[in-house]
Amino acid sequence: MTAELSPLDDTTPADTLHLATTRKVNLSDVETRTEHDLLGEAAVPASAYWGIHSLRAVENFPITGVPIGHFPDLVRALAMVKQAAARANRTLGALPPEKAAMIERACEVLKTGTEYHGQFVVDAVQGGAGTSTNMNANEVVANLALTLAGHARGRYDLLHPNDDVNMAQSTNDAYPTALRVATLEGVKPLQRALRDLSLELKKKGAEFADVLKMGRTQLQDAVPMTLGQEFDAFHVTVKEDVQRLGEVAALFHEVNLGATAIGTGINADPRYAPLVVEELAAISGHPLSLAPNLIEATSDMGAFVLFSGLLKRIAVKLSKICNDLRLLSSGPRTGFGEINLPARQAGSSIMPGKVNPVIPEVVSQVAYLVIGHDLTVTMCAEGGQLQLNAFEPTIAYSIMTSLRMLTAAIDSLTLRCIAGITANREHCLDLVNHSIGLVTALAPTLGYEVTSRIAKRALAEGRGVREIVLEEGLLEEPVLDELLRIEAMTRPSRHITPRVIAAAKG
Amino acid sequence: MTAELSPLDDTTPADTLHLATTRKVNLSDVETRTEHDLLGEAAVPASAYWGIHSLRAVENFPITGVPIGHFPDLVRALAMVKQAAARANRTLGALPPEKAAMIERACEVLKTGTEYHGQFVVDAVQGGAGTSTNMNANEVVANLALTLAGHARGRYDLLHPNDDVNMAQSTNDAYPTALRVATLEGVKPLQRALRDLSLELKKKGAEFADVLKMGRTQLQDAVPMTLGQEFDAFHVTVKEDVQRLGEVAALFHEVNLGATAIGTGINADPRYAPLVVEELAAISGHPLSLAPNLIEATSDMGAFVLFSGLLKRIAVKLSKICNDLRLLSSGPRTGFGEINLPARQAGSSIMPGKVNPVIPEVVSQVAYLVIGHDLTVTMCAEGGQLQLNAFEPTIAYSIMTSLRMLTAAIDSLTLRCIAGITANREHCLDLVNHSIGLVTALAPTLGYEVTSRIAKRALAEGRGVREIVLEEGLLEEPVLDELLRIEAMTRPSRHITPRVIAAAKG
Amino acid sequence: MTAELSPLDDTTPADTLHLATTRKVNLSDVETRTEHDLLGEAAVPASAYWGIHSLRAVENFPITGVPIGHFPDLVRALAMVKQAAARANRTLGALPPEKAAMIERACEVLKTGTEYHGQFVVDAVQGGAGTSTNMNANEVVANLALTLAGHARGRYDLLHPNDDVNMAQSTNDAYPTALRVATLEGVKPLQRALRDLSLELKKKGAEFADVLKMGRTQLQDAVPMTLGQEFDAFHVTVKEDVQRLGEVAALFHEVNLGATAIGTGINADPRYAPLVVEELAAISGHPLSLAPNLIEATSDMGAFVLFSGLLKRIAVKLSKICNDLRLLSSGPRTGFGEINLPARQAGSSIMPGKVNPVIPEVVSQVAYLVIGHDLTVTMCAEGGQLQLNAFEPTIAYSIMTSLRMLTAAIDSLTLRCIAGITANREHCLDLVNHSIGLVTALAPTLGYEVTSRIAKRALAEGRGVREIVLEEGLLEEPVLDELLRIEAMTRPSRHITPRVIAAAKG
Amino acid sequence: MTAELSPLDDTTPADTLHLATTRKVNLSDVETRTEHDLLGEAAVPASAYWGIHSLRAVENFPITGVPIGHFPDLVRALAMVKQAAARANRTLGALPPEKAAMIERACEVLKTGTEYHGQFVVDAVQGGAGTSTNMNANEVVANLALTLAGHARGRYDLLHPNDDVNMAQSTNDAYPTALRVATLEGVKPLQRALRDLSLELKKKGAEFADVLKMGRTQLQDAVPMTLGQEFDAFHVTVKEDVQRLGEVAALFHEVNLGATAIGTGINADPRYAPLVVEELAAISGHPLSLAPNLIEATSDMGAFVLFSGLLKRIAVKLSKICNDLRLLSSGPRTGFGEINLPARQAGSSIMPGKVNPVIPEVVSQVAYLVIGHDLTVTMCAEGGQLQLNAFEPTIAYSIMTSLRMLTAAIDSLTLRCIAGITANREHCLDLVNHSIGLVTALAPTLGYEVTSRIAKRALAEGRGVREIVLEEGLLEEPVLDELLRIEAMTRPSRHITPRVIAAAKG
Repeated sequence: MTAELSPLDDTTPADTLHLATTRKVNLSDVETRTEHDLLGEAAVPASAYWGIHSLRAVENFPITGVPIGHFPDLVRALAMVKQAAARANRTLGALPPEKAAMIERACEVLKTGTEYHGQFVVDAVQGGAGTSTNMNANEVVANLALTLAGHARGRYDLLHPNDDVNMAQSTNDAYPTALRVATLEGVKPLQRALRDLSLELKKKGAEFADVLKMGRTQLQDAVPMTLGQEFDAFHVTVKEDVQRLGEVAALFHEVNLGATAIGTGINADPRYAPLVVEELAAISGHPLSLAPNLIEATSDMGAFVLFSGLLKRIAVKLSKICNDLRLLSSGPRTGFGEINLPARQAGSSIMPGKVNPVIPEVVSQVAYLVIGHDLTVTMCAEGGQLQLNAFEPTIAYSIMTSLRMLTAAIDSLTLRCIAGITANREHCLDLVNHSIGLVTALAPTLGYEVTSRIAKRALAEGRGVREIVLEEGLLEEPVLDELLRIEAMTRPSRHITPRVIAAAKG
Repeated sequence: MTAELSPLDDTTPADTLHLATTRKVNLSDVETRTEHDLLGEAAVPASAYWGIHSLRAVENFPITGVPIGHFPDLVRALAMVKQAAARANRTLGALPPEKAAMIERACEVLKTGTEYHGQFVVDAVQGGAGTSTNMNANEVVANLALTLAGHARGRYDLLHPNDDVNMAQSTNDAYPTALRVATLEGVKPLQRALRDLSLELKKKGAEFADVLKMGRTQLQDAVPMTLGQEFDAFHVTVKEDVQRLGEVAALFHEVNLGATAIGTGINADPRYAPLVVEELAAISGHPLSLAPNLIEATSDMGAFVLFSGLLKRIAVKLSKICNDLRLLSSGPRTGFGEINLPARQAGSSIMPGKVNPVIPEVVSQVAYLVIGHDLTVTMCAEGGQLQLNAFEPTIAYSIMTSLRMLTAAIDSLTLRCIAGITANREHCLDLVNHSIGLVTALAPTLGYEVTSRIAKRALAEGRGVREIVLEEGLLEEPVLDELLRIEAMTRPSRHITPRVIAAAKG
Repeated sequence: MTAELSPLDDTTPADTLHLATTRKVNLSDVETRTEHDLLGEAAVPASAYWGIHSLRAVENFPITGVPIGHFPDLVRALAMVKQAAARANRTLGALPPEKAAMIERACEVLKTGTEYHGQFVVDAVQGGAGTSTNMNANEVVANLALTLAGHARGRYDLLHPNDDVNMAQSTNDAYPTALRVATLEGVKPLQRALRDLSLELKKKGAEFADVLKMGRTQLQDAVPMTLGQEFDAFHVTVKEDVQRLGEVAALFHEVNLGATAIGTGINADPRYAPLVVEELAAISGHPLSLAPNLIEATSDMGAFVLFSGLLKRIAVKLSKICNDLRLLSSGPRTGFGEINLPARQAGSSIMPGKVNPVIPEVVSQVAYLVIGHDLTVTMCAEGGQLQLNAFEPTIAYSIMTSLRMLTAAIDSLTLRCIAGITANREHCLDLVNHSIGLVTALAPTLGYEVTSRIAKRALAEGRGVREIVLEEGLLEEPVLDELLRIEAMTRPSRHITPRVIAAAKG
Repeated sequence: MTAELSPLDDTTPADTLHLATTRKVNLSDVETRTEHDLLGEAAVPASAYWGIHSLRAVENFPITGVPIGHFPDLVRALAMVKQAAARANRTLGALPPEKAAMIERACEVLKTGTEYHGQFVVDAVQGGAGTSTNMNANEVVANLALTLAGHARGRYDLLHPNDDVNMAQSTNDAYPTALRVATLEGVKPLQRALRDLSLELKKKGAEFADVLKMGRTQLQDAVPMTLGQEFDAFHVTVKEDVQRLGEVAALFHEVNLGATAIGTGINADPRYAPLVVEELAAISGHPLSLAPNLIEATSDMGAFVLFSGLLKRIAVKLSKICNDLRLLSSGPRTGFGEINLPARQAGSSIMPGKVNPVIPEVVSQVAYLVIGHDLTVTMCAEGGQLQLNAFEPTIAYSIMTSLRMLTAAIDSLTLRCIAGITANREHCLDLVNHSIGLVTALAPTLGYEVTSRIAKRALAEGRGVREIVLEEGLLEEPVLDELLRIEAMTRPSRHITPRVIAAAKG
């Protein structure tokens, strides 16, 4: 098994969180430089790679305390977009090669490490349809490029965040394109985590292949099965979603880069859109293509709604499995007690020795958070108006957070729970032997009504099915024993072809 | 107990459903009369009390097949509003007394029986912010009034649906006011059903007061309690919501009748609004009052959002109780098996004798439908724009449906499940006696760490807590027996003041 | 265009609704026959095709008043399943050919007409995981088969609902299989409706291809486009979901028929499962296949969650389009006023001549209902336990209702709204000519900062962009006119390759 | 106005975030101490105030990266609970006075500053029903108390986290009680923010009292009103929720402290529960009382569901207001253009001079997040089983996050948007004068049908209502002018008592 702790660990720069959560950019004791925008001038820390547009946004959106830099996949995807644009603009002769090279160098740095991710300071939940995220990216790329080239930050006369870094782009194409690429990146560890989980479940399925137990429907005793069958079913249901993820994520291969402001491609060379998408495909390694209708692609959030619906489905499956694990391990003495989950921590501050199913519990809670996020994504998508969806930043926040939490929760489940599960083999068999559900195997022979009566009698009298059938002389012992062979009940059986025995008898 | 089958039974006129679900108003074989509106002329069946505006709406909204007439509370509330307006307008000299009398008489008929509810033919889910419902009401009241006075239907020169029946009203005040009154009416049977349920649970609490059993947290054995305590907790949690319903429903006492189109009261005499609300309060028997700010009151759906949130809370509580009932009755042989739910029907088409918890299952499903409706209400409320919420009809549909389903489900639960529950007294006691959770009672005396060790040993060795403590000589037998008295564990106990015994020993 | 009113119209038997909504089966004045089950004996109307199991369920679940018979696709799918089982059982020698023939004949009748759909009387929302629906189907098939063969209803000695009609089936495989087939059937009219809508939108796109207008992002003036582009984007986004529907619905091709009680295939011949699925594929015309893991397939509701998520996505797209239509048609005098929706009915009971966007409004409301149902489906799916999901009936109810409402709403939108939309061509052009957003086209030439200043000045002084640029002498008139050519702004333009003109100038 | 930036700013210790988000507790280079639990021994950093139980939880739950310490209200509330328990236990003689004093001193430090909040390292989303949070609190209080008394951390022989700090408590009463107190604390700034917002809206209402404008329903021109009335309606709807918050939050005054493990009060002196609640009331300043049924109170999450529903209602109201603000400020040239929102930042990276409604946009997004959280809370509450709800930690996370985001978003709205709104007075009046909606004022005089015809003609011919009425000779000019006085239309008017003028004429 290849699962490890979520890769999140090393990629979240603490400074970023610090900056964003404090949010008051205190300038009293630091050196500053002055920048200006439509609203006038403002000072930013001289050491900051972000500029005045980021500053405005940091002040405007003190919402969650979670900055864009918290999502490394998104930062890297933004860098890829800026790099692709620089290449395409250079090819078209719109951007001087030396400027393009400066931009590319900065983007490489952002893609390959998280050292400067802390400069993505704007709160992830923001107004403006992602403009602030795009501006933050433009400013960081520009200033990083300037410093890497030996210039001072803020020398926008040499390399301009909007005119150069953002050339031929609008937030409205650059941002959703980056978000699509970031999602494609975030899908990979989730698929890996699901695959690891399914393999671990499969292993348990094999380990428990001969543990006979009672199957239950509606929490009532049904008919026998093996514990291995139960875990193998978990394995199959999880594995399926590795494939589903691939299929649905493929919707993100279609991007609108080159659409510019509203999809009409205003201010872009007609050769630009296909070219920049080709460059982005090469840079990202994803088989991206240009959306056939850019106006549609610019405002439509349908791919995110469906993808979020799939994350919800994964969440639902995981929660159902975890609920089952909690039921099967209920006890230790007054519950089902069929399996034991590994103890992960003391279960109670008052009840000594109590061990709780803490990992399945946290997985179900993550599922509920993901389902909540799906609703948020839905409402954001529904709120789009005319040529743009202004709520893309919260779609991004919800999807990115769900991907991260799901991946972490699945890894926890695999490593800290499934891998350590053991079965209470004898208890499982005891339960089967005492159950009334065995009567089902007699129904093809004795008919629904007779067997219903036997079941009712067994329950009322606290006795076993076998003895009542014998007492009533309904079947001879060898036939009865053959029909009641538990292993045989766990699969289809030719020899009890319905009515055949009965017919033979009759 | 006073619960009976939901009153729904007799109030749903089958003809209504027929008409609305067929929806194509087939006029080939029936006598017709001609009416006209802004769009031109159209024929309606001569026998119909509804007119051209209803016809347009029936054609425009073939959505759910559920007509307004399906909700008798809403029809009655619309009649009350029309009646109140007629009285107020007569008092102010705007409506001739004989016309007012005609309207009142028709409204009385609609309020006291369901004979004409089938005339409310417009689909409950409709565009137009309720205008079609209001128009349908105006037309039915006018034509019913005309026929009761011996005139032909359609003689709007004698009594006009808009100029007379709708005088000084807009859909935008008449419709939401009617919806508020209808909700107040729908709350009454729900409160009655909750009260009945809580009483039945209380009865069971008393019946099971001496059934000792194991309490469980996180599905793991915790500490002892009585089954009576468990049912009494259900009783208390249900009973609380009878009161909560009253409190939150009181928000509907504030109505905007008299606001007319957008809350400015255009076309209404300044004396009209207070007067009509006073009349409506008298007619409905609810302590209604005029909203202090009519513009706010006309567009705000906040009361419905909060009320729907309360219905959701009731749904959540019911589903939790029903989940518990299913857990406690799981088995009969391989589950918890502490209680038995009454058998209501054969549980399986293949497994003879299987009996399933069908009533708790249907209650949980109703809960999920109510929670879904709450989301629908939320989105409708959020979608309001400027001076009106155009989505009131679906708020109405969702609230009315939730009220009806909840009331029916609760009555089913009370009568067909709770009342017939029995306890497996001995099995419950057996489980307690074999549990390790008893060790908790020793923790104040022996400390958290020692008792944790004992618990762990008991589990590993498959033994009892008592024997291990004695074997280890940690406590003398009489002290131990006193500490392990199960009944004592089901309540706070002074004699085991933490550490005191231990200190005495030490 | 082939769209017509939803086919719902003729398929809902009013009697069914009547029976189910009254629910008290009044036997005082009718002839009866006696049947018995696990609970004892009971009388059912002699004329009823349903029997004692249906009776119990009708009494147990008086929830929504909507019976199974309200969903013809589900009834037909149940008949297909029963027919397929009869064929397979005959082939395997388990069912005598004459009994199989009787069953087949009854199923044919149920499939080809709705005459007996009224006999599916159980409330759609029910406990018992669909057992009551399956029992209702078994009873109706048995009694219909008996009467078609000239026997009396209730002669189960000749043909038994459980032993014969339900042979080798469990509710747990028969019911979800039927639901999958029913969903596949319900998808067809929805796809047809979406295709019709997209074609109508495409037609409008062509009709409005030369209507120049202002594009808007975040409700603020952005850059020019054509109204044709706007409608064509609607066309594309709707058309895409015809394909998505096909893809996701394909998940329903995998069925668990033959799984019997819990997926182990107990009581079924090992040859039975592949055979019965083959028969069902032939009967239904859908390329069905047997699920590879029947235990997984029996409890997993993942396909419904994803499918419901897709219905939600369709709902979101429709609501977004309808919100746009309402914005674009806002006015007539004080709003955007770019298009006119066809008047469908009088808009107000107090404001004469007001015409409201009632069709888009009802579509948005249907969207909110579908989104609510998606939540209900999610909670039902999450609530599955161990070998079965007990909440399948409400999943069925929600999916079937959403399919029906969506189809009806889309047809209404196509026929009663889109087809009649007209454009206010001159007003659209006027708005573009007066807008400041034109300044964007100058940014590649003049740079972001200069054009920002011009825009700010134009707004402050209430003047046009063109005159300010000329006044400031920033560009010569012919160049400026070329840059400000509106048609050119609606697509990418090579001749204004960024910076090229400026460079040429410099 | 007293609103300031959210108090969040200074209370989030960055170190906490650092620790929790890195999560791998790297012990290679730090001094450690050894602790043990049920699972064995482990090293924790010697400098850590948290201990082995916290360590296990940090490792088990690497989910969100947001530690408990991120919610200062929750940390403070936990300290209050521990302090109250120490006092009560001392009074009852169970805890030696010197130990009680040590605990109290540590709690005081935690309550009055955030210096040690960084020690609450466990992820906010966790399994175990809050046990890890409670254990974290026990450990931090113990070690802080030890160091304040001059002892080394880890000297649990002197003061034990479980036996002393947690004395007579279970997680199951201490944790939900702390959560209730924390919520009561979080309500205060939210109420303050809502009050500030409502006051600012009221101020705008007064400022715009004489700005005549067109009211709109369903986005269609309705009848006149003033912009002041519109803002005053916002003011009223926001103000109402200050009161609602107080009412619903009062449900949290009932706490279950003293319930211990499952509500039976096991291991607690019967005098303890009332005493500890009294102490907690005194310490917290909230009028807390002991829940009458502790078993119910221990598992029921109903108060959180209702409270979350109220937060959702606030979110819905805010989003509706923000949608309205975006509509009213749409333009500047091609939209409604009635008001101007203050520019907060450049609106576009490609469209120079564009200014977007970024603050209303972020508020709507926060609303969608809060609505998503409400769903998460609902599912958590529904998932409670038997004597406890294991999902309380995610209820806590969702509620605490929603409170924080709502408060921040409201403050942003008040300060950065509402306060700077200006009106386009003349444009508003122009729109009214050209509208057809004025015709409504003639309906009481001329009747619904005549005025409908006039409206239709005005629209078709592009003319004004006034001129058509005069042309048709329907009213004499003075009467017409009186009826069409716009100011008069913004309130009820006696002089146009319906039909009176017409009657006078007739």
